[in-house]
Amino acid sequence: MSIWYTEKHTPHSGITMEVKKSVYYGESEFQTLEILDTFEFGRMLLLDGVVMLTERDEFVYHEMLAHVPLNTHPSPEKVLVIGGGDGGTVREVLKHPQVKDVTLVEIDRMVVEAALTHLPGISEGLRDPRTRIVYGDGVRFVADSPPGTYDVILVDSTDPVGPAEALFSEDFFRNCENALGPDGVFVCQSESPFYHLPFMVDIFRRMDGIYPLVGFYLAAIPTYPSGNWSFLMGSRTAETTFPQCREHAQLQTKYYDRHIHLASFALPRFLAEALTK
Amino acid sequence: MSIWYTEKHTPHSGITMEVKKSVYYGESEFQTLEILDTFEFGRMLLLDGVVMLTERDEFVYHEMLAHVPLNTHPSPEKVLVIGGGDGGTVREVLKHPQVKDVTLVEIDRMVVEAALTHLPGISEGLRDPRTRIVYGDGVRFVADSPPGTYDVILVDSTDPVGPAEALFSEDFFRNCENALGPDGVFVCQSESPFYHLPFMVDIFRRMDGIYPLVGFYLAAIPTYPSGNWSFLMGSRTAETTFPQCREHAQLQTKYYDRHIHLASFALPRFLAEALTK
Repeated sequence: MSIWYTEKHTPHSGITMEVKKSVYYGESEFQTLEILDTFEFGRMLLLDGVVMLTERDEFVYHEMLAHVPLNTHPSPEKVLVIGGGDGGTVREVLKHPQVKDVTLVEIDRMVVEAALTHLPGISEGLRDPRTRIVYGDGVRFVADSPPGTYDVILVDSTDPVGPAEALFSEDFFRNCENALGPDGVFVCQSESPFYHLPFMVDIFRRMDGIYPLVGFYLAAIPTYPSGNWSFLMGSRTAETTFPQCREHAQLQTKYYDRHIHLASFALPRFLAEALTK
Repeated sequence: MSIWYTEKHTPHSGITMEVKKSVYYGESEFQTLEILDTFEFGRMLLLDGVVMLTERDEFVYHEMLAHVPLNTHPSPEKVLVIGGGDGGTVREVLKHPQVKDVTLVEIDRMVVEAALTHLPGISEGLRDPRTRIVYGDGVRFVADSPPGTYDVILVDSTDPVGPAEALFSEDFFRNCENALGPDGVFVCQSESPFYHLPFMVDIFRRMDGIYPLVGFYLAAIPTYPSGNWSFLMGSRTAETTFPQCREHAQLQTKYYDRHIHLASFALPRFLAEALTK
């Protein structure tokens, strides 16, 4: 017998992979969570049936979400992560010795608990003394944060439909801006240039009205739609320009380095032109 | 009824897409050729059941295979394309007004004929007066070429198994070097960093012994395995350094521009480290 998991990336296309076995299945008030063990990608975390990460390629997403903004900010000490209950982003943030504390705001306790039990290599940072976990709504948490609290805010969300939709709203972007310190840097995952171009143009314009400096950067993530993924960065002050790579510390990474950091801001012409139309 | 085409990229994973209809099927002495019309990617060309291109994303592959070397060479006038009977690479090469003639060496006449009939937007350059089509074995053709004949050689081949294997051999690399003029630039498609790392390390070493300057560059191609694809470039003289982008002419492109050109040489750390071990 052979079991294949297929995820449709559009109504007419997707990826497919062979499954060894199901490791975990749970339902919370927010979503379903499944961890499957696959032959090619190791363990894979699904929320509402959509791939969030696989052990094989999660390093790309988490390194790029964390290190690009942390090496852009002049001195990142206080970091806020919205979503990302699996812990992969926190693990990367903690590689920066300058970071004094990381607050993770995850709406769904089940994600954290399943990751701690079944994805230990990814969730290890959640047990670090510098990490504080808050279970709650990231939108509300940011709205209630005192101004200037964080150096870097990272939004490690699901796709912008359903529960995560509010994490791409103008209000949320504005509240994050307000919760950032004077040199603050904001990043959110922002979907695939090949499949979600209109969405990317939309949120770019939304962010562009709030942050003086806004830009996308890209990374190669095989198990995400099209294999090419984007991140949208905003800088609270025009003095914290990008692309720049400050290299605060030697980082143990598998994808990220200063060349990749700087190169990741080069956009395919079809994307660059869509943003200037 | 719904028909799905699935291509395994590894024994345990792949992509899948819904097919509207079959447009063409043929068999030659070398391979089978199929053109399917898909909902998401338009028409798709398969050789021996493997995706060669789709109308939706072929621009990335063909632009990057052609424009990076042509904008590296100081004055590309004579170009040789090995394989690429669909014509996409020739179409891009011909966008450079400096190019005086393109020789396409395709082993399988069926590829050219099917592309001319069923993929007109891709094959148009095959009808250009600057294009000469030779039906024959690229390995032999290059071995028989007088020294210093070409400014740029592009290898637009299938995967390095079966018929295309010889296009990645040391002998072939050496014969190409010999067929290039003093500033000559060579590029071949060279598979996916995520799936074919040992192969990439192998051919890098093979090329490194022959060309004074050798390096990979990368591009995001959704329908190729992992969505991230590599090209291996060799420069016949250390004076024609890269990355550099000479921008000989304004090019009508959808993916390529000078930022992408320069950025495409930044390699993920896991790849860069594998090459220096």
